[in-house]
Formats: sequence, structure tokens, C-alpha cells
Amino acid sequence: MIYLDHAAATPVIPKARQAMEDYFSEQFFNPSSPYLPAKHVRDNYEFAKNTIAHTIGAKGVDIIITAGATESINLAFTAVLSAVRKKTVVAWQNGINNAEKVLKMPNMTEILILSTEHASVRAVAQHYATEVGAKLIEVNVDKNGLIDLKDFQNKLSSRTVFVSVSLANNELGTIQPLAEIAEIIRKERERRLKDVLDARGSAGHIKDSARDVKNNAGNTRPLPLIFHSDASQALNLIDISVARLGVDLLTINSAKIGGPKGVGALYVSHEVELRPVIYGGGQELGLRSGTENVPGVIGFAAAAEEAKSHVMGNRKKYQKYVEILKSELLKCKLEPVFLGNPKHQLANFCPVSFPGIDAERIIYLLEEKQVYLSTGAACSANKGTVSRVLKAIKLTDAEISGSLRISLGMLNTEENVREAGKLIVEAVEKEILRCRK
Amino acid sequence: MIYLDHAAATPVIPKARQAMEDYFSEQFFNPSSPYLPAKHVRDNYEFAKNTIAHTIGAKGVDIIITAGATESINLAFTAVLSAVRKKTVVAWQNGINNAEKVLKMPNMTEILILSTEHASVRAVAQHYATEVGAKLIEVNVDKNGLIDLKDFQNKLSSRTVFVSVSLANNELGTIQPLAEIAEIIRKERERRLKDVLDARGSAGHIKDSARDVKNNAGNTRPLPLIFHSDASQALNLIDISVARLGVDLLTINSAKIGGPKGVGALYVSHEVELRPVIYGGGQELGLRSGTENVPGVIGFAAAAEEAKSHVMGNRKKYQKYVEILKSELLKCKLEPVFLGNPKHQLANFCPVSFPGIDAERIIYLLEEKQVYLSTGAACSANKGTVSRVLKAIKLTDAEISGSLRISLGMLNTEENVREAGKLIVEAVEKEILRCRK
Repeated sequence: MIYLDHAAATPVIPKARQAMEDYFSEQFFNPSSPYLPAKHVRDNYEFAKNTIAHTIGAKGVDIIITAGATESINLAFTAVLSAVRKKTVVAWQNGINNAEKVLKMPNMTEILILSTEHASVRAVAQHYATEVGAKLIEVNVDKNGLIDLKDFQNKLSSRTVFVSVSLANNELGTIQPLAEIAEIIRKERERRLKDVLDARGSAGHIKDSARDVKNNAGNTRPLPLIFHSDASQALNLIDISVARLGVDLLTINSAKIGGPKGVGALYVSHEVELRPVIYGGGQELGLRSGTENVPGVIGFAAAAEEAKSHVMGNRKKYQKYVEILKSELLKCKLEPVFLGNPKHQLANFCPVSFPGIDAERIIYLLEEKQVYLSTGAACSANKGTVSRVLKAIKLTDAEISGSLRISLGMLNTEENVREAGKLIVEAVEKEILRCRK
Repeated sequence: MIYLDHAAATPVIPKARQAMEDYFSEQFFNPSSPYLPAKHVRDNYEFAKNTIAHTIGAKGVDIIITAGATESINLAFTAVLSAVRKKTVVAWQNGINNAEKVLKMPNMTEILILSTEHASVRAVAQHYATEVGAKLIEVNVDKNGLIDLKDFQNKLSSRTVFVSVSLANNELGTIQPLAEIAEIIRKERERRLKDVLDARGSAGHIKDSARDVKNNAGNTRPLPLIFHSDASQALNLIDISVARLGVDLLTINSAKIGGPKGVGALYVSHEVELRPVIYGGGQELGLRSGTENVPGVIGFAAAAEEAKSHVMGNRKKYQKYVEILKSELLKCKLEPVFLGNPKHQLANFCPVSFPGIDAERIIYLLEEKQVYLSTGAACSANKGTVSRVLKAIKLTDAEISGSLRISLGMLNTEENVREAGKLIVEAVEKEILRCRK
């Protein structure tokens, strides 16, 4: 088997499995139980949370454990509810009594996401936008999938409450300049604060028209503006620090970095107010109820630590592998188009298109040779829908049709990558012949 | 170690661990990926879902996999949103234009839960009640923790949209007569349907006052009435069949029956409309997004199958163990009060009180002898709050103070149960001496 789809799933690494081992049948206690062995489990759980948090430059108390990236993203977007509730209070303070009306007034608030966000971010954003009557706006990317910062600046308005931009795209591997985005957001926040202070200063005059609420002037506090990033793909290839990135919320995931499935986390900065997605016994600071998945978190911690400590080595290794792969693919009679720009791309990604070819057929041909790769994100690949990401970077139909997502990882070696390259070329050329007949 | 707290957590049984083994690092593929080994994983996942569903007399398509009982309960309660939305539509059809107003009109709808429900059910019920402006009403229990059916019948009104009663209580082990409750609910549904048909029949007259909506007369369809049960504790001791129980929604849990933590399921009958708690890629029929926790579900299936096939044997075994334990406890100088009625109690439960004793001190004394048990539910035990369940069955303060929750299970033998009994008596008598000094 040659596995080229590490962006879809990774095996659990031996260190993570070993770490989990004890927690299934020996240290199985409920961490909330009152006796000593259960308290040990609680301690080890909290220690693991700290380990996970440290890999992104945070503390254990700053992260909420979830059942995976999708749940983390859902939890992140609940910030929209708090933001809008605050806005409602503000409107009420300004004399608009029917706060419900403000809450549901269309387009009073806006949510910005990148046009290439993962299906789950898109679905969650749509849900919360509908929930509060906000407008969901997409920010454009360039041909490499990189955010168009001018477009972002234009679309970021005084009504924006939430911005969500993935650290690295799940189909192209494009790494977004989060720190630059955060800086633009910081300036908008400053502007809002200044507006509020100015309004307060103007003879204590409290304005009361809907327009003023809309413009966020005369409010006692500015409309919140929250920055979330989905970093599911990146923990083993980018040295992540929440402070350096300037995010308020960061989603991380165990299953993409050699940890077990069914565990994720959300970093939450102190300024952000969330609402639970799952109510109940009050675990995870009341933000995520349910008995803690102790083995999962222990395994996640081991995988995260391993990922973090090999960031530099992984990067070098995969760069080399991608070079080998590309040199093989370039031998094809049909010239490949490499997608994205390696300067702003995860080192293990090699998305490529053989224009005009039917990529799904290539996948079936390679499947026979036990080479496994994907046409796009696993979820959309399965549904046979055309990748939004490839559309967003304005590929031609022929290019989209011939697109393969190749993501290298722990199951690859120089040899099997070279072999995969040869087999892909073989499959593409076989397919060209079939079409000519 | 003698473990007497199986209601808080159970070790993963060997069969479940073996079943999971392959799915961590070998069959690790994303079930949504397009190549053959991933499709095998998808098949095995669906097969496991079927296995789980069969243990409660349902099919794989009838259950939604979640990250545990708490999430399942949250998902179940989203039915309240759909029910109320329907009600809003109904109100609108009746000429009340401001549907929002109906939605938020206090006490237009009611949610009924048992006064002894688990903290998580209580918290979720409170959240959804607040969300739609419904009234949360508690149904009384008798001194054994058994539902007061007369009280239930009195409190079930034409405004009730949701009823949640646990199959077995997590502190007393009391088994509720779900089929009888379901029958009362069925009659109320029939009455509502008749009302609607009568109203339609009366010369096509469409009534339009708020009173009519309240009374649910003149509506084009009746207000939904949904019945949920949390069966987390019971799968290894009761032969569960959703049809026989008459529930619309049933929560089951892996971690309490020898399966891994972090997995649960919700049975959903075809008539019930839910809303996702977690939005995203659209897994689990769109009701629970996120990459499937394949090893977790495989392990859950193995544990559920094992639990189901030993229901009769378990019951006999634990009845015997409880008898042994009780005969030991009866040797205590301070007469124990056994809580609940064994006729309506999970066979592995032996909740007991030594009136006037400080149960927390008993737990610490026993901890030194490596005997582990709890004073109440693990979650509330940890917070030092007084058990609502013990209050609900009207124990005296002295009885509450001296209450121990003992739940037997797979880690027990005749010998260690007898030994535990002796050690508990020893601890209680030691504590009596200390108090007399």
C-alpha cells in the first residue's frame, strides 16, 4: 500500500497508542469520582490537556476538549451568539425596546469566511448566520488559494462580528497569513473602540435610532469582532503559537496528526465569551459537558507533542519527498499543473492537475495498484460534488476534472513516493490512450 | 482493589479492546474517502452501528452516533425546537402574525422531566426550555424513586411537548415503567389529534384567538408530544426494546457497559424531527457532523453485544452479590437503610444509608483499604453538593448524610463483595466510635 491521503486521516502513532493503553481497562475511572485512583486519572487528564495546550503556546485552562475539529468549530462560532446578544443589550440601552427585532434584523451583523473554507466551517457559519440573522460573506483568494487581503479589508465592516480563516487549506495546503489578518482585525477593533469613546465624549448624548446601532456609534461598548482559525491540518508542519498568530479561537484536531479519532480541542482567549454546544454536567469549565474521553485526550497529547517536536524535520523531509514526486510526475506525456505556491503551502501537500483527465478514473486505476489518494476533501469526494476550493482558485473545468489531492505523511518513504509518482504517470498515460481510442 | 462504582465508569472489556485494536493504526482510513480500504472501514462502521441498534431492537439507520450520553441527550432535546417551530407555524396559520411572539410567549409549552433525572438531563432540559420559553416541570417520585404516575398524568397537559424519564436512575438504580408512561402519552396524542379533527370538522371554522392556540384547538395539526428516555445505565441488565418501551428517543452509552469512553448513540423514531447540535460535513444523516470515531463505534458495538447477551446471567449474578453484600451490611451495629425497592431496581445496585454517619468520611476510610465507591453521582459527588435524588425520595438529613451509592459490575466476585461488606461495616463502626468520643 502507498497512502497519499494523510490530509483525510492518519494512523495512530505507536507513542499515542502506548500512552492510551493503560486508560482503557486499568485507569478507567471517571475523573469526577471522589476516590484516589479517579483523582489520579483527573491529574493525568489535566496534565495531557496542558501538553496539548503547550504545543500551541497556550495553557491547559485555555483549551476546551471536544470530540473533534467539527465540534470545536461549532463551539467557536457560538461566540457569534454572545456577540449579538451583547449587541442586543446595547440596542436596548439605546432605547430600542424590542431587542428581539434588532437580533433578527437582517444584515445588521456580518460573518466573514474564506471562499475556500472546509465544508464544516461553511456549514457552521451558515447555521449561526441564519440563527442571528447575520449576512455570511466570503472573502476571495488568489490563484494559489491565498487570501486576497485587499478584498478582506474591503469586506471587513463595522458590522463584522466573526472572521474564520483556516490556517492551512485542506485541499491545497495553502497557508494563510493569519498574523496579517489579525493585524487588520486589531485596527478595526481600535477604530470601534475609538468610535464608542468619541460618542461617549460628546456631551453624554445617547443616540437612539436604528441607524446608530447599525453604525455602532453611541454604544456603551463596541461590537465584538472575533477571529477564529481552523488549524486541523497544520500542527505537525507549522510551529503554531496562538499569540504570534493573533487568533482569539483556534481549532486543533487529534486525528490528522497521528492521534486517535474523536478528539479535538478549541483554544479560547480570555476575552471571548462562548456558549456551550453540549449542555450537561458542566465539564470543561461548563463549555462542554459529558464524561471526559480520558484515553482520547491522553493519545491526543502524545501525538501533539510528537508532532510539535518534529515540525522542522517533517518540513525538510516532506519537501524532499514532494520534489521527488514532482520530478516523477513531470515525466508524464501530459504536463501536470501543480496547484498552489510551495512558498505558502504545507510541505507535505502536492495538489496537482492533469488537465482534461478524469481524476476519479485515475483513483480507481491506482486503487488496483494499492495507491490511495483523493480528488478533493474526503467528505466532498465521497459525494461526487465539484470542489469549491478548485473553483475558487479559478481553475478551468479541464483542470478541475483532472485534479488529484496528494498529501504525504508518516506512511511515506523516498521509495514509495517515487514509486507512487511512476504509478500515477502510468495511470494518467493509460487513461490518455483510452480516451484516444 | 474492590471497585463498587460501576455506575460511574466501567473498564473496557477485552472483547471491545480486541475489536478496536485494528482500527487505530491499520484500518485508520476516513470512512468518507473514495478508495477500497476506506470503503471497507465504512462497511465495518455501518455494520457496528447495526449491531448497536439491534441490541435495542432497532436498525442502524435509526440511530445517530454521538460522543456520549450527554451529547445524545442534547440531540434528543432539539426535538423541542422543531415541535415549537411547528407550533409557531400553526399559530401563524391561525391568524397570529407575530409568530416570534408565540414562540417566546412564556409557558405556552411545557417540558416534563422526572425530579430524579441526571444532572445532564436537567441542564439540557433547562437550556431548551429557556430557548423556546417553555416551562420546565418536574414529576414527583415515590420513596423508592419510582415515578408517581398520577402526578405525571396531572402534569401532562395539552401544552406538553417533551417528556424525559430515565429508564434507570443513576443513583438508586430505580427502573421506571416506561411502557406505562408511553401509554399515557399515546392517549394524550390521540386526544390532541381528535381535537384537531373536531375543529376541522366544525364547518371549516378557523379560530384565531391566542386561547385557541393555547388549547391547541382549531389547529391544522396537533402539537407534537415526544418521549425520550436516558437508558445509559441499563443495557447490560435490562432487555431493551424501543418498541416495547414505547419511546421516540432513547439515549445509550458505551462507557457504562464496558465500551470505550467518548461514544454514545441516540435512537430516533421516524416521526421525530431533530436539529443537529453539531453542524458540518453532514455525517450521520446530517444530524451529527464530524469524521466518524470508527474505533470507538467498533468497541461500543462489541460491548453492547456482550452486554445484551448476558442480561439474564448478569441479573442473576448481581442479585446474588447484592444479597451477600446486604447480609454483611446488616451485621453493622448501626442498622443500614437500603434505598429503593429491589423489585424495581437494577440488579447491580445496592444504595444504602447509615443514618447520621458522614458518608464522605466512610469513602475516605474505605479508600485506604482500596475499596472505591461514591456518595452519589460522580459529577455531583465531586462538587460536594447534596444529591437531588435523595432529596426527591424524601430521605431525612441524617439518611442523606449517610448515603453510599454501591453499584456492582464486571470487577466484582462473590469474595470481593463479601470482603467489601465487611470493610464497609468496619468503617462505619469506626466512624461511630470517633463520633462518640
